[in-house]
Amino acid sequence: MTRVPQRGPAPHLTRVAHSVATTERERQNGHLGGVLWLTGLSGSGKSTLAFALEAELFARGYQVYVLDGDNIRHGLNADLGFTQKDRTENIRRVGEVAALFADAGFVCISAFISPYHADRDVARSAAKGRFHEVYLDADVETCEQRDPKGLYRKARAGKIPDFTGVSAPYEIPSSPDLVIPTGKKDVGASLALAVSYVVANFGLP
Amino acid sequence: MTRVPQRGPAPHLTRVAHSVATTERERQNGHLGGVLWLTGLSGSGKSTLAFALEAELFARGYQVYVLDGDNIRHGLNADLGFTQKDRTENIRRVGEVAALFADAGFVCISAFISPYHADRDVARSAAKGRFHEVYLDADVETCEQRDPKGLYRKARAGKIPDFTGVSAPYEIPSSPDLVIPTGKKDVGASLALAVSYVVANFGLP
Repeated sequence: MTRVPQRGPAPHLTRVAHSVATTERERQNGHLGGVLWLTGLSGSGKSTLAFALEAELFARGYQVYVLDGDNIRHGLNADLGFTQKDRTENIRRVGEVAALFADAGFVCISAFISPYHADRDVARSAAKGRFHEVYLDADVETCEQRDPKGLYRKARAGKIPDFTGVSAPYEIPSSPDLVIPTGKKDVGASLALAVSYVVANFGLP
Repeated sequence: MTRVPQRGPAPHLTRVAHSVATTERERQNGHLGGVLWLTGLSGSGKSTLAFALEAELFARGYQVYVLDGDNIRHGLNADLGFTQKDRTENIRRVGEVAALFADAGFVCISAFISPYHADRDVARSAAKGRFHEVYLDADVETCEQRDPKGLYRKARAGKIPDFTGVSAPYEIPSSPDLVIPTGKKDVGASLALAVSYVVANFGLP
């Protein structure tokens, strides 16, 4: 899979400046660019699936990158808190960055709860037709039983205000491109669904 | 150069989730990831060089992407104006996004005036050692003669407040990784210098 860039001396070029079109990038990569927008409750398995999918697609030769709380909340969005306004801005920025990665030819996987239709629609608009909404379907009871980070326990104890599924709403996607029943399927089966979707939808025309 | 991703059915995998390391991406791409941070006055040729360099590196098989006012100011940073505070935040965000692209294995070329040491240092920190400061050396007189967007004329007429080089300072990089004398060299010669730098500095160890 390794492509070795040409390493000769730089020629004297008078090429007219222009940007590289996404379609050229896609031809070079051998697959389409786009955003896989994972949405679902805390504990529904977004990050787990995102990283498993990234590893699998990478091994298959895709250009793929995950945006999640780890690389966004500590960097780009380190200035944002958890007020309603800041959460909306958090998702807006993630949507814009994901759109840049899609424009650059990547399969960009975002893994954020993103509970509101309106916020997800803003992200969809940013990606200009290269947006795939993936709903990780696991209900509150299941997620709360798992509670991998102990967040539901804290939320029930009143220590986290406006916690999605407990004290703040989660708006289930009304027409997602893919539903993965992570409440019922294990990681391997969920991953298989996601990979199949990408193979079917990110191939060159 | 085309790499065709493997397209078989998704196997039932129980792979443990993990993110793909930048070094693995670099091995797959055949070159290092990093940020080429172009800085210089308005009219010094940042965007022209950035897009010419992107086209040339892409043709050579690099994964390369330009961040500039066009794809940032209208999207991610559409909420920002041109106050001192907003300009600093503009550069901070660009630095964070460039760092994500570098982490994803790209040569990310940013093309912003970024007149202040302090703001550039923030961008440098974000990229965690994968930052290359490129100073496009063209003095105010030269840039003002070119004035491709008519901005200097407007600034001299008092129609643009705090215009870098006219009514706001430009802090010349004190130890840039590369200086390109765009005030004296044409696009082709400037491009040749930039390509040579990338070939010399983004090769795999």
